[in-house]
Amino acid sequence: GAWGSTMAESTNMRLRLPLLCIILEVILIILFGTLVEYNDDTHAKLWNENRTDSDTRNDHENEFYYRYPSFQDVHVMIFVGFGFLMTFLQRYGFSSVGFNFLIAAFSLQWATLMQGFFHGLHHGKIHVGVTSMINADFCTGSVLISFGAVLGKTSPVQLLVMAIFEVTLFAVNEFILLSILGVNDAGGSMTIHTFGAYFGLVVTRVLYRPNLDKSKHRNSSVYHSDLFAMIGTIYLWMFWPSFNSAITNYGDPQHRTAMNTYYSLAACTLATFAFSALVNPEGKLDMVHIQNAALAGGVAVGTAGEMMLTAFGSMIVGFLAGTISVLGYKYLTPVLESKLKIQDTCGIHNLHGMPGVLGAVVGAVTAALASPDVYGHGLQRVFADVETGKWNPQSRGGFQAISLAVTLGMALFGGLITGFILKLPIYGAPPDTHCFEDGLYWEVPGEEEGHQELYEVATPNEVEKLSS
Amino acid sequence: GAWGSTMAESTNMRLRLPLLCIILEVILIILFGTLVEYNDDTHAKLWNENRTDSDTRNDHENEFYYRYPSFQDVHVMIFVGFGFLMTFLQRYGFSSVGFNFLIAAFSLQWATLMQGFFHGLHHGKIHVGVTSMINADFCTGSVLISFGAVLGKTSPVQLLVMAIFEVTLFAVNEFILLSILGVNDAGGSMTIHTFGAYFGLVVTRVLYRPNLDKSKHRNSSVYHSDLFAMIGTIYLWMFWPSFNSAITNYGDPQHRTAMNTYYSLAACTLATFAFSALVNPEGKLDMVHIQNAALAGGVAVGTAGEMMLTAFGSMIVGFLAGTISVLGYKYLTPVLESKLKIQDTCGIHNLHGMPGVLGAVVGAVTAALASPDVYGHGLQRVFADVETGKWNPQSRGGFQAISLAVTLGMALFGGLITGFILKLPIYGAPPDTHCFEDGLYWEVPGEEEGHQELYEVATPNEVEKLSS
Amino acid sequence: GAWGSTMAESTNMRLRLPLLCIILEVILIILFGTLVEYNDDTHAKLWNENRTDSDTRNDHENEFYYRYPSFQDVHVMIFVGFGFLMTFLQRYGFSSVGFNFLIAAFSLQWATLMQGFFHGLHHGKIHVGVTSMINADFCTGSVLISFGAVLGKTSPVQLLVMAIFEVTLFAVNEFILLSILGVNDAGGSMTIHTFGAYFGLVVTRVLYRPNLDKSKHRNSSVYHSDLFAMIGTIYLWMFWPSFNSAITNYGDPQHRTAMNTYYSLAACTLATFAFSALVNPEGKLDMVHIQNAALAGGVAVGTAGEMMLTAFGSMIVGFLAGTISVLGYKYLTPVLESKLKIQDTCGIHNLHGMPGVLGAVVGAVTAALASPDVYGHGLQRVFADVETGKWNPQSRGGFQAISLAVTLGMALFGGLITGFILKLPIYGAPPDTHCFEDGLYWEVPGEEEGHQELYEVATPNEVEKLSS
Repeated sequence: GAWGSTMAESTNMRLRLPLLCIILEVILIILFGTLVEYNDDTHAKLWNENRTDSDTRNDHENEFYYRYPSFQDVHVMIFVGFGFLMTFLQRYGFSSVGFNFLIAAFSLQWATLMQGFFHGLHHGKIHVGVTSMINADFCTGSVLISFGAVLGKTSPVQLLVMAIFEVTLFAVNEFILLSILGVNDAGGSMTIHTFGAYFGLVVTRVLYRPNLDKSKHRNSSVYHSDLFAMIGTIYLWMFWPSFNSAITNYGDPQHRTAMNTYYSLAACTLATFAFSALVNPEGKLDMVHIQNAALAGGVAVGTAGEMMLTAFGSMIVGFLAGTISVLGYKYLTPVLESKLKIQDTCGIHNLHGMPGVLGAVVGAVTAALASPDVYGHGLQRVFADVETGKWNPQSRGGFQAISLAVTLGMALFGGLITGFILKLPIYGAPPDTHCFEDGLYWEVPGEEEGHQELYEVATPNEVEKLSS
Repeated sequence: GAWGSTMAESTNMRLRLPLLCIILEVILIILFGTLVEYNDDTHAKLWNENRTDSDTRNDHENEFYYRYPSFQDVHVMIFVGFGFLMTFLQRYGFSSVGFNFLIAAFSLQWATLMQGFFHGLHHGKIHVGVTSMINADFCTGSVLISFGAVLGKTSPVQLLVMAIFEVTLFAVNEFILLSILGVNDAGGSMTIHTFGAYFGLVVTRVLYRPNLDKSKHRNSSVYHSDLFAMIGTIYLWMFWPSFNSAITNYGDPQHRTAMNTYYSLAACTLATFAFSALVNPEGKLDMVHIQNAALAGGVAVGTAGEMMLTAFGSMIVGFLAGTISVLGYKYLTPVLESKLKIQDTCGIHNLHGMPGVLGAVVGAVTAALASPDVYGHGLQRVFADVETGKWNPQSRGGFQAISLAVTLGMALFGGLITGFILKLPIYGAPPDTHCFEDGLYWEVPGEEEGHQELYEVATPNEVEKLSS
Repeated sequence: GAWGSTMAESTNMRLRLPLLCIILEVILIILFGTLVEYNDDTHAKLWNENRTDSDTRNDHENEFYYRYPSFQDVHVMIFVGFGFLMTFLQRYGFSSVGFNFLIAAFSLQWATLMQGFFHGLHHGKIHVGVTSMINADFCTGSVLISFGAVLGKTSPVQLLVMAIFEVTLFAVNEFILLSILGVNDAGGSMTIHTFGAYFGLVVTRVLYRPNLDKSKHRNSSVYHSDLFAMIGTIYLWMFWPSFNSAITNYGDPQHRTAMNTYYSLAACTLATFAFSALVNPEGKLDMVHIQNAALAGGVAVGTAGEMMLTAFGSMIVGFLAGTISVLGYKYLTPVLESKLKIQDTCGIHNLHGMPGVLGAVVGAVTAALASPDVYGHGLQRVFADVETGKWNPQSRGGFQAISLAVTLGMALFGGLITGFILKLPIYGAPPDTHCFEDGLYWEVPGEEEGHQELYEVATPNEVEKLSS
């Protein structure tokens, strides 16, 4: 098309994208070759050696059988869940699924290295297995949350650069929280959701486009794009119990976390439908709310889900999360854009930001209320510092609260730096007139001939003409 | 739009839906707070206490690892399977997936309470874990089957009210069958499919709309809506082995049930394609048959699947189920509507009704043919009453048959009562002119501007004009 | 429509398809009744007998718990992955998902018999359980690969006939490789991908249509059909780790295979995006590449994945696979069509053919480099012939290489025979003018009235008229 050629210099990805992808992958391969080794459960020699030493250890005790089904559910959330959730835009489906695919495939490799480096080398080597795969997917999830804020306004090169920095800072923050402060955050209310959301919000603030309304007509859904997005929503919703429980301890914690998340999400869904109808003058439901706010219940039990929150507590938390999320979409997002110049395409502040903070607070309170009376011998399976003798519920609650502050600080600082790096005019970012548009970076079918054209040029006026 | 404003009084959900959702969720939360407790496998104290008592009990024996993968498959069937299967209507995709989501999220909570109440309190408390989650999803499935009969003709408030009653009666019927009569029905040919189908058919009979043909033009599919529906079909088909085996005993019964279902469905699919082409004058396949009848094989081995039905027997049952289901769609559904005034939008009588009855009969026969020769020590793992010494195959077969009669009675009686309750003019049901239409309860994109409008007003005549 | 009636004699499926389906299913049922029995893990008597003999054997050791989650992932790949991957064509979505469904449902039954027959009868009986189910799905995958080559140009009757022959020859080839030559190929780089690809390529060569350009305008995607195809792609990508590890030994091999595949695919994805942009003059990404080439990394570690390939090695293999696959789509496919008259609709040569051969070579080299130093006691868990004392790495590598040659020979020979059988003018194949068209074999909605028509007749010129 006409604009395509005029934009050719600025957004052409022919050299930039291949060069960056190939360089990154070569670096990754070299670092993996130097640093990464199979862990005890994936190594042919080590697994079978250990097995001989102890007769009670059998193949079914390989961590694969405890974690792999959860891993696959998490994997679906990362690639189908996030990918399709963002297809709601009418002309940005290829980029939503495609760029999600690209930056996730990169991030999970880079995260393996960064998390392995920070969370403990073994004689200078990073050991990998299904748990590291889940953790890498978790870190990737954080990047995809930030992607939601800048969706439609960034080139794939920018997104990869963002992922490089965000994964690194994620690993640092996670290290501070889990290893230094020793807090609980199995489902990542803080490490994944709060971090990813506020990082992304600062990035999109720095990348603020005053003239974004030139692409406003594409910044909305059409009927079928909303149905594609519901595929993403429903998969995220269904598998969130697996997400929150994927790396908890075996046995009761894993089981309990999945169940708490299940009830939180169910209650959240009723709140979402209730408030979506309530805030609409005609009482009509809004797909944006259903697609997003119904998931806030999973975010909000990401920290406390493994604790003895009970189904009762989970449902209260889920109900609150759904409520604030819908209200955020309705009343806060427009203000964030008009007053604070935060253009948050997917509304990640409502789905991940506020519910993430809520989850951190709920986690701190639930941890502060923990007692051996309630947990029995299970206490040390949830709170690792029981074994070291340093545990007491009040200080544990305090550390959980401190962790929220650390996470917010890291996200704001990291997002600021990364935002300014992404502002450099070298990445082929889309012009204001062509945001939310696949055609810039993709061969879109039907541009030359046929049916698709029809969608593009027919306006309601023309349709009036037709029907008269 | 014009009709929107004239209908505003009757279908506006602004107060009704929020009020009902919030009241229901508050009641649920209070009841969960009062009545629900973690079971032995999800409770930090109880799981670890028991573990200390017996050295042989290890984390991998937590029921989570036996049941959770099956639970997730069932969960996908409930939310993606049922949800997308019903998106076949051209303008009802939001409602199909969305209302499915809402009533499932409510039903699984309410079912936890009702099933927990009937199936055995522990010192006045309901114990929850992955098995109760699967059972709650099963009960939810029954409500969603009934939803299929009234699809497009009911408001979300009506659907929630229907769910309240149907879940309750489901639990009563399940209690009579499993606890009083002590029969087998792991995959729910009777409890889920037969009950849900006949309950829904009676409801839709009571809600009969003589002028429904005013919405006839929307009561059909378009090309892409049929593809969305196939997502639902395929997920239901693939995961049905998990559905039928999810709550059978560990070991051989779970394994055998999954395999029997796998073969039944494969045979059913060939029957479906065969008869779909055969009943069409031009030999063309009908998406309605493929989307629905190919699943009947899963329904029809819902009772006998855990027994020694053999792959051979399963294939015969599946083949029969597919055959009667296609023939039902072709020849019976039109008669049900014209003669019996049963407007069955999804044809649940063909997918769940007749195959459910077939499954009950097959279950009774297979149970009556059971013998220690064939089952060995495995007999008591399938038929619980072997241990109590009261087992004999003929009476067992008889009880299975009685259960079918009880289920039909409960469904007809319950559907009748519920139907009349739903007939009250207070729920904002859609007018005859606006059935099968998302725009009544949803903000539909493109109503004000742009492409979607095009779909609405262009008629074949106008298109003729265009191309001349 | 007009063409519908003129074509009626040749493509009417009313008798042919039902007759074939019913005859095949009846034969299958008879053979299953005669030959198939529950194996030790699915039989009520056998499983519980064995359990009593040995106290250490418990229900959790039933192969169901080791294999069933993998089976379900493989099942999703076969029915959703392959099915939706092929929906990219604008007017062939019903056939892609539907015929995929039909021939898969047939093939898995027929494969159970053929594989059971060749891989070892037990007193004249075929024993079935979850492993046979996975193997049957694998064999089915091979047929679906071939389906990709002839997509849009064959009737469902032709496809079923192709499946009969291909499944049979697959089982023979698999028997030669795994039982006679004793090689490794857990993920089927050779048995599934190389075999299926070259078989299909020869079939489509024999079925060469010189006038296929009469249907050229339908041999391409539209916007939403590409999004449906991405559902297939992403599911294949996510679950490939389960595919390659599904039938490896328990413990470290299963765990290691899944992880190697995970890393291979991640690296492959970056290569795919890099080269897709690089080979496009405007640097735009091509959906065909993303949908297909990003999967080549899974194919290419199908043999070596269970060995000590390391994450490092896997990533190199994946990167290579993605690269050759994109280059194949860009430069080789057009040549294959113009010079060799191979019309390969989905480009299976690029996704399964070349990456399959690469996988076979990588497997041979990795096997030749194996040593007890690296594998320890785990050596015999990967290479079965260690136990028989006949193992040495060089000859093992040699046998792996020979297997590739055998597979290619079997595929070429089998495809040739089958192609000529399929050329008989009795199957109702579509005419050159109506390839890639659902309307030939399906009731397509909106053909008589309404919106769909609009898509059909409006051309850009008419649209121009409209907007002027």
